[in-house]
Amino acid sequence: MSGARDEIEDLIALMARLPGLGPRSARRAVLHLIRKRAGLMAPLAQMMGHVADTARECAVCGNISTGEICDICADPRRATGELCVVEDVADLWAMERGHAFKGRYHVLGGTLSALEAVGPEELGIPKLLDRIGAEGVQEVILALNATVEGQTTAHYIAETLEPTGVRITSLAQGVPIGGELDYLDDGTISAALRARRSF
Amino acid sequence: MSGARDEIEDLIALMARLPGLGPRSARRAVLHLIRKRAGLMAPLAQMMGHVADTARECAVCGNISTGEICDICADPRRATGELCVVEDVADLWAMERGHAFKGRYHVLGGTLSALEAVGPEELGIPKLLDRIGAEGVQEVILALNATVEGQTTAHYIAETLEPTGVRITSLAQGVPIGGELDYLDDGTISAALRARRSF
Repeated sequence: MSGARDEIEDLIALMARLPGLGPRSARRAVLHLIRKRAGLMAPLAQMMGHVADTARECAVCGNISTGEICDICADPRRATGELCVVEDVADLWAMERGHAFKGRYHVLGGTLSALEAVGPEELGIPKLLDRIGAEGVQEVILALNATVEGQTTAHYIAETLEPTGVRITSLAQGVPIGGELDYLDDGTISAALRARRSF
Repeated sequence: MSGARDEIEDLIALMARLPGLGPRSARRAVLHLIRKRAGLMAPLAQMMGHVADTARECAVCGNISTGEICDICADPRRATGELCVVEDVADLWAMERGHAFKGRYHVLGGTLSALEAVGPEELGIPKLLDRIGAEGVQEVILALNATVEGQTTAHYIAETLEPTGVRITSLAQGVPIGGELDYLDDGTISAALRARRSF
């Protein structure tokens, strides 16, 4: 087989690297795309290429953005003095879907892990300290996953921030033990934000 | 939210239209892509755009190809006088993975369906009749799914081809009742091809 089949096999191999798709479902997806190549495949390729070219991490908070600074950091109405610390951009999106938080974010990009050599520097914790002074932050809300790794990281951040005197809270009621933020419904996230308690 | 978020939401909405992906898994996939935008997202977008531009149905058999005629129809070594009729390009790919069939294909693109107004014309059955004369076909192998729709279509084709005097066979041993071709392992497909019987 040459030509067309090779290119389609390459496309299937790339698609199979997406989370949730294996070789078989990638093959089904590619066939579906080829059948709908004008209505779905071409616009998807174009949008994907566009986002690949323009998307980057916000220099301030780590959110996904097309500019140097993301929409949330660029919006003066979000300078409420509240800073919400999340593990991941998916968690930031989950918080935004809840429409309950009006402040800004700090995306860690993971949790502390000795095994994977992820330390405070990799998570941007020194940058978080800088932001507290520079942006006049009065409250840091630790919205980390209720997993062992998330809570360990939350404790570390709380300890690190203690000398600054900033108020440190964490999402409380509603986050189930062992659960992950991105899997919660919007109502639960709102409730947890309203019932936040001192850490 | 404007700009970046809108474009990313559009991308998620397009991804969610793929079979096997819902809104949540599409969001995860897009975040994964954005994280790997240089190594995965950009090449995937490029390859997808390339295939969207170049892929088309082979004018002879209905296989996916980048030219007017697919690799199999263009290969003189595959002019064995055997023609394998399949419902779908996915089934053709499944047959090819079995490496047992050396002839050419005819892709119906579906099964006869009164409800969905799919008749012999839509499935290219008149074209199949033409090919039997034009290509000197001696045997037509009906490799349709072992479903009610597949077998109804197989019976219709067998009846239609009877006046031509061509030998009509069907995949036999190994195809489980109610099963679909694309889900079989390669060995079962090979065994079924070897044990084919007169229809």
